[in-house]
Amino acid sequence: MKKFLNSVDTVLTESLDGFVAAHSDILALGDEHKFVRRKALKPGKVALISGGGSGHEPLHGGLVGHGMLDAACPGQVFTSPTPDQMLAAVQAVDTGAGCLFIVKNYEGDVMNFDMAAEMSEGVLQVVTNDDVAVENSSYTTGRRGVAGTLVVEKIVGAAAEQGMALPELKALGDRVNGATRSMGVALTSCTVPAAGRPTFEIGDNEMEFGVGIHGEPGRRRDALKSADAIAEEVCAAIVGDLGERAKGPALLFVNGFGGTPSMELYLMYNSARKIFERSGVRVIRSLVGSYVTSLDMAGCSITLTMLDNEMTVLWDAPVHTAALRWGM
Amino acid sequence: MKKFLNSVDTVLTESLDGFVAAHSDILALGDEHKFVRRKALKPGKVALISGGGSGHEPLHGGLVGHGMLDAACPGQVFTSPTPDQMLAAVQAVDTGAGCLFIVKNYEGDVMNFDMAAEMSEGVLQVVTNDDVAVENSSYTTGRRGVAGTLVVEKIVGAAAEQGMALPELKALGDRVNGATRSMGVALTSCTVPAAGRPTFEIGDNEMEFGVGIHGEPGRRRDALKSADAIAEEVCAAIVGDLGERAKGPALLFVNGFGGTPSMELYLMYNSARKIFERSGVRVIRSLVGSYVTSLDMAGCSITLTMLDNEMTVLWDAPVHTAALRWGM
Repeated sequence: MKKFLNSVDTVLTESLDGFVAAHSDILALGDEHKFVRRKALKPGKVALISGGGSGHEPLHGGLVGHGMLDAACPGQVFTSPTPDQMLAAVQAVDTGAGCLFIVKNYEGDVMNFDMAAEMSEGVLQVVTNDDVAVENSSYTTGRRGVAGTLVVEKIVGAAAEQGMALPELKALGDRVNGATRSMGVALTSCTVPAAGRPTFEIGDNEMEFGVGIHGEPGRRRDALKSADAIAEEVCAAIVGDLGERAKGPALLFVNGFGGTPSMELYLMYNSARKIFERSGVRVIRSLVGSYVTSLDMAGCSITLTMLDNEMTVLWDAPVHTAALRWGM
Repeated sequence: MKKFLNSVDTVLTESLDGFVAAHSDILALGDEHKFVRRKALKPGKVALISGGGSGHEPLHGGLVGHGMLDAACPGQVFTSPTPDQMLAAVQAVDTGAGCLFIVKNYEGDVMNFDMAAEMSEGVLQVVTNDDVAVENSSYTTGRRGVAGTLVVEKIVGAAAEQGMALPELKALGDRVNGATRSMGVALTSCTVPAAGRPTFEIGDNEMEFGVGIHGEPGRRRDALKSADAIAEEVCAAIVGDLGERAKGPALLFVNGFGGTPSMELYLMYNSARKIFERSGVRVIRSLVGSYVTSLDMAGCSITLTMLDNEMTVLWDAPVHTAALRWGM
């Protein structure tokens, strides 16, 4: 295992310490590293809280700040955060207008966020499940929540910043999730620090098609194909799943898994954009970069969100987080 | 070689097409992919032009926009751009106030930018050489220009945006470069698409200490050490080279080489910050991310710029590029 670390036991806390120190103008750390929170809260605003296993940075801690999340609870690498983390976050950032949890659809995450929601008052939840690759998976009943979660967090975060009430935010989050589809491809495995070896074996000329963000199996193992051929199949799966809805304005988000450089991501974006536009999608907003990662895995995912006018305006609204920033 | 590509001959142009399409609100592409330019020029402003071999994205194209570069000329992967690229860029973005070339110190880059400068009027140059690892290297006489180049581009770009004249911009650029030191460590090699195999061999438990951004040899090959031990030695090299100047306010920039995830970069930032602060450096500005990359190389570099008040204000000034954005 080749990583910059001191001890596998302290990777997470040391990284969080560095992260919050580097962004101390906007972020603060909860006791015992239970959560990362927005430094300046906005009284009367619904608090948005997300979280999940670590190893997907900048998701979610890098999306805490003005116009997005109020707090993020980092579990150990690829391990759900515990309910006491979410309870501590609620206590720290709920200013009285209630909380919305944004949860990726993994059994552990759903269970632990559910438990925290039951023990709190005034909490609603949005569960994301944008991954069209497979129904049910290693850690999931139903579809997995992957890179589309960022889109939900951005759009719902903007609405919360503008004063939208809790039930409407939950409805908006469900609507954005419902308009979003993703699928990913891995060229290499990731290596979890505590395991010390690759999560899965993969041949020199193979790819995992439809991979999950923890290295879960996708649709199949296949020979590595050209970028265009990969994009064709991923886009077809997304468009096929969206059906009639795959027409008109959309956000195209090409996401790197951590080990893939931006040159390749923009090349994939170029392929995917042409393919989507041939089928009637009009790409009016774009995001390209490594935002929902799987440690050091080489690979990428393609996410498409069909946009209506409200969603577009909210996507464009000012945001100031460690990883996403515009308009301020 | 495991990369998202269609053909090694078209990697660069396809990636540039995707890049400019994704950022068409601020960028435009020159004919024959000769340069990436700022869409909206500011008449009367000195034009900042940089460039170099591709494979270091987002440097330099991702740094074109308000408050930074006016144009960037991408050579083939790890290959200098040709003088006709810079001449075409000058023609496209010089609005009459002259041009400043910002050039990383590699023999090919220096030669080709020199040639273009001689064939133009009103061009001055800043050559960056922030890498303390080695004097003279595979492609360099003197020290290499590496991640510190981004700092020069940001600070000089802000001053140009505010109307500073060409000779003062050149002096400022030289001053920022003179206040900046970097050094990098590689855990794996990169793979140039046209070569199809790793640039160098490296053992499972080895690191290249002082590596260049094309995979050039550094100070030595060594056993992989802890993050703290690596940071200790890199920071000592930087502080030792700065000498008396290594006291007071500074920008700490931890840069990933393309294959290293942000969790590890923030962990390295955490180590480096503590070490620098023990020796009297006060970290008042931070940047952590993969900005000056070497394709898919795993590794990182540490850059320290000693800040005065003018430089700090210019660092904070609004910027709107694909890779760096704040204040607007």
